[in-house]
Amino acid sequence: MKRVLLAAAVTLAALPAVAQDIAVREIGSFHVGGDVATVSGLEPRDITFSPGSPPFRYDPNGDFQAGQMYVQYVRLANPRARYPLLLMHGGGLTGVTWETTPDGRPGWQMAFLRAGHDVFVSDAVERGRAGWARFPEILKGEPIFRTMGEGWHLFRVGPADGWARDAGGRRAYDGTRFPVAAWDQFTKQSVPRWVTTDPMIQAAYDAYVQRVCPCVIVVHSQGGNFAFRAALNAPDKVKAIVAVEPSGAPNPANDDAAKVKDIPHLIVWGDFMDRNALWQRIKPSIDRWAGAIREKAGVAEELSLPARGITGNSHMLMMDDNSDQIAGLIQEWIAAKGLMR
Amino acid sequence: MKRVLLAAAVTLAALPAVAQDIAVREIGSFHVGGDVATVSGLEPRDITFSPGSPPFRYDPNGDFQAGQMYVQYVRLANPRARYPLLLMHGGGLTGVTWETTPDGRPGWQMAFLRAGHDVFVSDAVERGRAGWARFPEILKGEPIFRTMGEGWHLFRVGPADGWARDAGGRRAYDGTRFPVAAWDQFTKQSVPRWVTTDPMIQAAYDAYVQRVCPCVIVVHSQGGNFAFRAALNAPDKVKAIVAVEPSGAPNPANDDAAKVKDIPHLIVWGDFMDRNALWQRIKPSIDRWAGAIREKAGVAEELSLPARGITGNSHMLMMDDNSDQIAGLIQEWIAAKGLMR
Repeated sequence: MKRVLLAAAVTLAALPAVAQDIAVREIGSFHVGGDVATVSGLEPRDITFSPGSPPFRYDPNGDFQAGQMYVQYVRLANPRARYPLLLMHGGGLTGVTWETTPDGRPGWQMAFLRAGHDVFVSDAVERGRAGWARFPEILKGEPIFRTMGEGWHLFRVGPADGWARDAGGRRAYDGTRFPVAAWDQFTKQSVPRWVTTDPMIQAAYDAYVQRVCPCVIVVHSQGGNFAFRAALNAPDKVKAIVAVEPSGAPNPANDDAAKVKDIPHLIVWGDFMDRNALWQRIKPSIDRWAGAIREKAGVAEELSLPARGITGNSHMLMMDDNSDQIAGLIQEWIAAKGLMR
Repeated sequence: MKRVLLAAAVTLAALPAVAQDIAVREIGSFHVGGDVATVSGLEPRDITFSPGSPPFRYDPNGDFQAGQMYVQYVRLANPRARYPLLLMHGGGLTGVTWETTPDGRPGWQMAFLRAGHDVFVSDAVERGRAGWARFPEILKGEPIFRTMGEGWHLFRVGPADGWARDAGGRRAYDGTRFPVAAWDQFTKQSVPRWVTTDPMIQAAYDAYVQRVCPCVIVVHSQGGNFAFRAALNAPDKVKAIVAVEPSGAPNPANDDAAKVKDIPHLIVWGDFMDRNALWQRIKPSIDRWAGAIREKAGVAEELSLPARGITGNSHMLMMDDNSDQIAGLIQEWIAAKGLMR
């Protein structure tokens, strides 16, 4: 397998070295997907708005919107990219992933705007500004809340036993690039998630692609599988996918990789994979999908940062202290695929 | 009471007539406020991620972030306003209120950016990208979900008996300016809300003001009371408040209006107040607070759109078909108060 696809001679000049102002045509947003769901048969009940105030009769029955997702866009006056760039977040998070890093540096939304892309940032169904619906009547099951500590190991910032609620007691991996002093700030970005809503989420992503694309997708973690499938569902609409640490992918036994052979794929991996059993289990399933695409004469490349000599990156590499450098590598790949004007 | 404060001779030229590109220095975001809350004593349980997959052992106990709010900002390369403009949404909604209107026109975020303000748009605690925490353990009580039909009368688009799930069966007030064909799209912006979180929401708004201000605040509906109180809590930080259809205000019997006498207030009202008993009950409490500010030699002005000859506006007037005109009137008032360079 051809692991390092980016020529070492390519410089990082693809992203402006100095923060530049950008000429913006419009900032806007919309909700896409979803449908009306009806709740009936629940008992109206009294709810007290604030202590001492008279109770309010609340009827929980009625018609509600459910299954929509939220999309915010920044359109440039003079985009240099051929297609809009769609940034899709991972599990338990929202589009905030792509905005300012927890320690206050410009995030990838700004990086790719400055590189000349119209940038779209979304919140998946039931996350963030997408809104969420009553459960278990509309959204089945119950939401999962991520503790402040869960991501410390899951996102490969440090060992599981390196987590402590008190910041002084935390132990990260030597050489981590995650801004660990901003960990608590990062965890304010967490939102609850359901584990029963994948079909609803996928349907909204598909509707989003139909509305906005042709496009290029940069996707993180849990979003990876949704983006891979969105491409399978609309291969003429997706011009490239950059999957950053995807946590899932289609199985070639069930899905025909030939459908996406004309869509270049880049899979980006950070460091410390050997410290985490879960990621060691996940990666082969991604490799399998990438391999199937290559078998169909498609392009599925891997950018392993450690293999490029870039060490210390966590799962949240768009927040790591070398996030601009990684955005630059991705931008180079996008440009090399002929996706800039 | 001096009802119409804006000179009729002032033109609407304060907002550009044609959509202009804007030079943006940075788009970014942060979470502010909140604290760590701990959940303990709950039983771990098995949750099935997807049908047929092995159950996942979920431990709901641990430390979580709660009480933070989300703030997104657009900083201009060359702002013409003296202070950032903070747009604060109303109940059951998020900062999306200020973005593209449900029928696809640029919203007030763009209008005030084009008028030369650095614009900050927030999601209050437990709404949208602010995230929400487990209930009833952390957030007390339960969330309220607004039906698709509730706002039809509450937001003064039409009579209560004019609502129907089928769009063809709906009856709006004659002359409504709300884009009624986009009603269902509008209701996709709804998010659940708690009725127990006011102190948490206020604390986050106060932290927000401390972080970002001096500033000018434009606030809608439920946000009104939070903004009035944020000004009471930091009168040196707030340079003006434009309260658009506020649904609550401090009571002069409990709060000293003299504290905010140096902060010019503008209260903006739409049409059809006489059709809605709730708004007839709400408005006098706002008038009382405005009157108290004036008694202390402060500035609290009212812009009644019908009194200005502008009829048909709903409670959601930033989405009405004359939303740009109303933004223009507010921009004129801000300029008249010396808040532009």
